[in-house]
Amino acid sequence: MSNLQTPTYEDVKAAAERLAGHAHRTPVMRSRTVDDATGAQFFFKCENFQRMGAFKFRGAFNALSCFNAEQRRAGVAAFSSGNHAQGIALAAQILGVPATILMPTDAPAMKVAATRGYGAEVVLFDRYKEDRDALGKKLADERGLTLIPPYDHPHVIAGQGTAAHELLEETGPLDALYVCLGGGGLLSGSALSARSLSPACKIYGVEPEAGNDGQQSLRAGHIVHIDTPRTIADGAQTQHLGQHTFEIIRRDVDDIHTVSDAELVDAMRFFAERMKMLVEPTGCLGFAAARRLAQPGQRIGVIVSGGNVDLKRFAQLLDAG
Amino acid sequence: MSNLQTPTYEDVKAAAERLAGHAHRTPVMRSRTVDDATGAQFFFKCENFQRMGAFKFRGAFNALSCFNAEQRRAGVAAFSSGNHAQGIALAAQILGVPATILMPTDAPAMKVAATRGYGAEVVLFDRYKEDRDALGKKLADERGLTLIPPYDHPHVIAGQGTAAHELLEETGPLDALYVCLGGGGLLSGSALSARSLSPACKIYGVEPEAGNDGQQSLRAGHIVHIDTPRTIADGAQTQHLGQHTFEIIRRDVDDIHTVSDAELVDAMRFFAERMKMLVEPTGCLGFAAARRLAQPGQRIGVIVSGGNVDLKRFAQLLDAG
Repeated sequence: MSNLQTPTYEDVKAAAERLAGHAHRTPVMRSRTVDDATGAQFFFKCENFQRMGAFKFRGAFNALSCFNAEQRRAGVAAFSSGNHAQGIALAAQILGVPATILMPTDAPAMKVAATRGYGAEVVLFDRYKEDRDALGKKLADERGLTLIPPYDHPHVIAGQGTAAHELLEETGPLDALYVCLGGGGLLSGSALSARSLSPACKIYGVEPEAGNDGQQSLRAGHIVHIDTPRTIADGAQTQHLGQHTFEIIRRDVDDIHTVSDAELVDAMRFFAERMKMLVEPTGCLGFAAARRLAQPGQRIGVIVSGGNVDLKRFAQLLDAG
Repeated sequence: MSNLQTPTYEDVKAAAERLAGHAHRTPVMRSRTVDDATGAQFFFKCENFQRMGAFKFRGAFNALSCFNAEQRRAGVAAFSSGNHAQGIALAAQILGVPATILMPTDAPAMKVAATRGYGAEVVLFDRYKEDRDALGKKLADERGLTLIPPYDHPHVIAGQGTAAHELLEETGPLDALYVCLGGGGLLSGSALSARSLSPACKIYGVEPEAGNDGQQSLRAGHIVHIDTPRTIADGAQTQHLGQHTFEIIRRDVDDIHTVSDAELVDAMRFFAERMKMLVEPTGCLGFAAARRLAQPGQRIGVIVSGGNVDLKRFAQLLDAG
C-alpha cells in the first residue's frame, strides 16, 4: 500500500497531461446494431486499441512518471495477471527504468511473452498456492525496487481515470457508464472522471459472477475477501478491492452488477462479428451487463478495457476452431 | 456499363456530402510496432469498422442516392462476391429501395446471411461456370431494375473515394498510399482523392499473386482478362478491371504490386494480435505489400478495406482452431 492520499479528479487531469503523446487517444466506437436492438445510444471507449492492448498502460505510465531519480535508477517491481505487467514493462522501457515482474504461472502465454518483449525480467508464481502481495513485497525489499501494485495506488487510479475522461470529453454527459471491475483501479478512476464531468451519470462496476467480491463489499460496507475466482475473465481474478479503490467506489459508484462467463462469450462474439474487434474476456464485462440493463433513450458509455487474448484461446472460447 | 462520365475529384466531394451522417467516419489507427519495425509512419484507414463491415457501403449508398423516383420505386439489382451485395442491401434498406442481389454459391455464409438480413432477395449462381455480368443484366431487364455493378460505375467509384478523402483530410500529405485492388473501384476512387489532396503521393494498387490482371493491364496499356483467380482474398477474385476504373488507374496510379496468400495470412495475424482488429483477407492486401516495401521516413497510408470474415474461417486461416 502507498502512503499517498486517495486521488481526486485533479489527479486524473494531471495524469492526462503526463500521458499526452505517450498513450493513444483511443477511438470511441458506435454500433447501429446495438443501438437498434436496445433503443439506447452506446459509446464504446476502445482501450483494446491502447498501447500494449489495454488501459493498464495509462496507470503504469502515470505511476512511473512520478518516480524520483533514485527510484528510476533502482527500478520498478510489479505483480499482475497480465496487462498491468505489460503496462509497467512498456512504461519502464519508455522511461528507461529497469522492471521486474511477478506473474502467475497460468497467465496467458501471449502476455508473458509480451512482458519479456518489453525488456522486463519475469518471475513466475502459482496464483492458487502463493500470496502474490507477500512475494511482491519480498522481491521489492530484497532488490530496493519500488513496487507498483496493479490497482491500489493513487497514481495508478488517476492514470486509469484518463480513459473515461477522454470518453466524456468526446460524448458529453452520459446517463450510465459501465466499467469492468477486478481490483477497482479502472472503476474508481472512471468514477472520479464521471462524477466531475457528468455528475448525474449512473456509474456501474461489472464483475464476473464467480468473483463478486466487489458487489459483496459495496453491500457490506467493508472490503470482502474471496478465494481466487475461476472465470474466463482472467483480468478480474482478484480476491479483494483495495483501500483506495474501495474508498472511491463506496462513495461514487451506484451499483455493481455481475455477468456469467456465457454472457462474456456472447459479448466477445458480438464484438468480433459485428464490430470487428478482438476483446479479451475481461474487456467484455461492461458491455455484457450494459446490453442486458440498457433502457431505451439512455446514452450509455462502456469501457472496453483490453484485447489481449491468445488467438487459439479466442477461437476455443467462440467454438470457432 | 453506365453512360455516365468517368468521375473526377469533384464527384468524390459530392459523394462525401451525401454520405455525411449515413456512413461512419472510420478511425485512422496507428501502430508503434509497425512504425518501429519499418522506420516509416503508417496510417491505417479502418474501413473494417465501416457500416456492414467494409468500404463498399460508401459506393452503394452514393449510387442509390442518385436514383430518381422511378428507379427507387422499381428497385436495384447487384451482383457481388459479398461486400458490395451487403452495401447495396443496407443502402437500399435505408433509402427504402427494393433490392435483388446475385451472389456466388461459394460466397462466405456470413455475407449471404447479412445480405438477406438487410431485407434483400438473394439469387445464387456458380461463379466458376456462369457469367455474372450476363446473368445480372438479364435479371435487371426482366424486372425493370437498375443494375449497380460492384466497381465500374462513376457513382460507385466516387463513393469509394471518400475513404481516402477522409484519411488525407486527417493525415495531410502522404508519401505513399496502398490500396487493395479487385475491380478497381476503391483504387480509382482513392486515386482521385490522393491526386488532388496529396499530389506527390505515390499511389499503389495491391492484388493477390493469383489474380494479377490489374498489374498485367497497367503494363500492357489495355484491360487484360483472366480466369477467376483462386485466392483467399475473396473480394479480389475479379477477372478484369472496368472501363472507368482502368481509365483512372492508368492515369493516376503509379504501380500495382502483388502479394501471396501466405503474406495475407501474416498480415491478418498481425492485425489481430497487435492491433486487435479483425480484417478479412482482401482487407490485408494493402498492408501486406506496404510492410514489405516501406522506406524509412515515409508517411504511408493503407486502406484496410473490410472485416467480413467468418470466425471459423478466420481461425482456420490463422491455424488457431
